[in-house]
Amino acid sequence: MAEVSTKPYLIRAIYDWCTDSGFTPYIAVAVDDTVRVPTEFVNNGEIVLNISQLATSRLLIDNEAISFQARFGGVPREVYVPMGRVIAVYARENGQGMAFEVPRAMAAPAPRAVQGPAQPPPVPEPPEPPKPASDRPRLTRVK
Amino acid sequence: MAEVSTKPYLIRAIYDWCTDSGFTPYIAVAVDDTVRVPTEFVNNGEIVLNISQLATSRLLIDNEAISFQARFGGVPREVYVPMGRVIAVYARENGQGMAFEVPRAMAAPAPRAVQGPAQPPPVPEPPEPPKPASDRPRLTRVK
Repeated sequence: MAEVSTKPYLIRAIYDWCTDSGFTPYIAVAVDDTVRVPTEFVNNGEIVLNISQLATSRLLIDNEAISFQARFGGVPREVYVPMGRVIAVYARENGQGMAFEVPRAMAAPAPRAVQGPAQPPPVPEPPEPPKPASDRPRLTRVK
Repeated sequence: MAEVSTKPYLIRAIYDWCTDSGFTPYIAVAVDDTVRVPTEFVNNGEIVLNISQLATSRLLIDNEAISFQARFGGVPREVYVPMGRVIAVYARENGQGMAFEVPRAMAAPAPRAVQGPAQPPPVPEPPEPPKPASDRPRLTRVK
């Protein structure tokens, strides 16, 4: 039996928890050429996507990838994110969720500058209006 | 809406991952008087339990607790573990899984002695023959 990562199971778990709790599930993605997203919304090699039922159609989270259709600037686009490129899944409302180790893509549009404790750059969230940096995941230890 | 912890969702995720992967799901439990387990198998305030379908009957993992019936020394016993007392869930075969922060119980049968880098004490695994300490969870970062 091919060994499967726990990652898709954990992503589905946080997605279900968000949905059951009335929260909005977001994913942060490290973009490379295996990721299919509107490149105009990629910032520093990353994109943040709302994967709630309201913001997507035909959402599928299987063991290989997260795929769905969503509107970007009113235009429906296909999104495909291989599991290995998901950096985090979390609730927009409180930042709770999980982060994952993802190798930086060599082909990322703009490598993130190495900085100290500075704020992370603002990230676009195309299916909804842009949010302030405080919507970035603030992962907390599971209680 | 009452806020629900992510913990039961993550525990179910690791349980499903173990089952789909052919691994044996184990939980480590910090025993206090809210936990119902055969006390003769508690060691240093903790017990490790096999929660696979083969080792249990009427297994239920809901948002409040993990409950099931299992044989201990050939005798069927009822087990009830409130979510807050689950220290870890992991695959016996490779130790992969998740650990959680659990306050130490004041009423634990025997407080663990403070020690340096000594080996953890051997733990009973009642539904199966005792295993060596190497079966303790070796949690790895999610890839």
